[in-house]
Amino acid sequence: MNKINKLVVIGVGLIGGSFALSLRREGLVGRVVGVGRGMANLERALGLGIIDEACTDAAQAVDGADLVILACPVGQMPAQMQAIAPHLSDTALISDVGSTKQDVVAMAREHLGRHLPRFVPAHPIAGAEQSGAQAARFGLYEGKNVVLTPLPETDPFAIETLNDLWLACGARINTMSPAAHDAVFAAVSHLPHLLAFALVDEIAHKPNSKQCFHFAASGFRDFTRIASSHPEMWRDISLANRDALITELAEYQAQLQRVQAMLEHRDAEGLQQMFDIARTARNAWLDTLK
Amino acid sequence: MNKINKLVVIGVGLIGGSFALSLRREGLVGRVVGVGRGMANLERALGLGIIDEACTDAAQAVDGADLVILACPVGQMPAQMQAIAPHLSDTALISDVGSTKQDVVAMAREHLGRHLPRFVPAHPIAGAEQSGAQAARFGLYEGKNVVLTPLPETDPFAIETLNDLWLACGARINTMSPAAHDAVFAAVSHLPHLLAFALVDEIAHKPNSKQCFHFAASGFRDFTRIASSHPEMWRDISLANRDALITELAEYQAQLQRVQAMLEHRDAEGLQQMFDIARTARNAWLDTLK
Repeated sequence: MNKINKLVVIGVGLIGGSFALSLRREGLVGRVVGVGRGMANLERALGLGIIDEACTDAAQAVDGADLVILACPVGQMPAQMQAIAPHLSDTALISDVGSTKQDVVAMAREHLGRHLPRFVPAHPIAGAEQSGAQAARFGLYEGKNVVLTPLPETDPFAIETLNDLWLACGARINTMSPAAHDAVFAAVSHLPHLLAFALVDEIAHKPNSKQCFHFAASGFRDFTRIASSHPEMWRDISLANRDALITELAEYQAQLQRVQAMLEHRDAEGLQQMFDIARTARNAWLDTLK
Repeated sequence: MNKINKLVVIGVGLIGGSFALSLRREGLVGRVVGVGRGMANLERALGLGIIDEACTDAAQAVDGADLVILACPVGQMPAQMQAIAPHLSDTALISDVGSTKQDVVAMAREHLGRHLPRFVPAHPIAGAEQSGAQAARFGLYEGKNVVLTPLPETDPFAIETLNDLWLACGARINTMSPAAHDAVFAAVSHLPHLLAFALVDEIAHKPNSKQCFHFAASGFRDFTRIASSHPEMWRDISLANRDALITELAEYQAQLQRVQAMLEHRDAEGLQQMFDIARTARNAWLDTLK
């Protein structure tokens, strides 16, 4: 594959920074320019050898870039796309790392103009609780899944290049439509986050809230771990993937109605069957992770 | 406190076995008789020095006992209570370790007859995924909560004795009514189990189930850990604490309706506020565990 002579990373945090570090180690990039809103994080990124050059102006940074990765929060992407579009070359590839895809695709359609065929929407599944350039590391993507959601008009060369770069980071590549992506992640990630936040919020509002927390044990701790996630980030994800999430939440509410009915009818067999299916499915899934 | 010359443990597993081991180490018990349905587990308990004598007949075992602990599954308790009641002395204390209390109290009222004032309903909060005599260990109860739910007619001496024995195991004693106990545990333990089972069961039935599991990551793993719990045990707990659980499930469904409405109305502020309250409450709770 062709070397990326100039890589621009907009948002040099855990995800963008680790991508740059991994490609550097593989000798696949020349110069790396980091873009951020303030200099503090960029200075750290320079000090850690993640980037060669820091810049607070995305429009200026993308001049002559072979690849631009949008690794900033999804909420900042429209402004960044708008800023860079007039300054991208006719061969520049563009990609992102957002955890929702239909909304990012809609932004790209609106703001990238003639560059749209060279935009490859992507989602590396490697979130963690740390953030900032200091969290970036080699090997973050080893064995991790990366989802590419190319559009009908996406240039095959652009897809192939992003595919090869993520493979070089050690990732496993998966391709699906933006809608399929958003439905899957609504089910296995976004809905569980909402459920955990909702439970803890409810308990916090109970008259016997103090007593409840006093007796909460390790099962509660693990079930609610994701309720310690970042509120603003999850507000944005919830709204970005709103349609799929509304669908999933409605299905889950129907499921809880079934549970409620089984309790009301003292349906021991029905409850046990549901618990059995869940345990068997979960344990089979755990086996695939080994 | 007086030494327990003869302790009978009905069900020598993690909970009952660890109770016997802890009291032995403190020199608070003389002879320990283990009761079980089969000999295999009892033989192991003998080999491990948890009990001095094994017996498959509870009625025979309780002869001359100072304290009988019902540490068998709650479903077996009515039969065990019925079996032992005619053979208990007029000074024998009785207690249990069941994770629901109103149902155990109802059983005791039905089956223990004149011994009821010497019955102290109890729930040590120290469940774990292991079971059987081989899981029993000293120190299981160090720093753990034990809830006593005495009845209006419970003999103060009986309460005091159980209190002292659990203190000697290193536990923290909490006293509340059976109804308050069941409401608290419905909220912080039983409901989360149902929610996790329900989510995994729902995903297992999706047409794109395989794809969903493929992309499930560490957040999903922790959220659903309790969905790998024992189906029969949780069927029994769900039905034993059915009334409180129906109340909690209805409240949670109302909470999910609020979440649904916030998504539908794109209420960014409302979502962020809920997530904020949840994260703050959870982190404050984690601080109390340190």
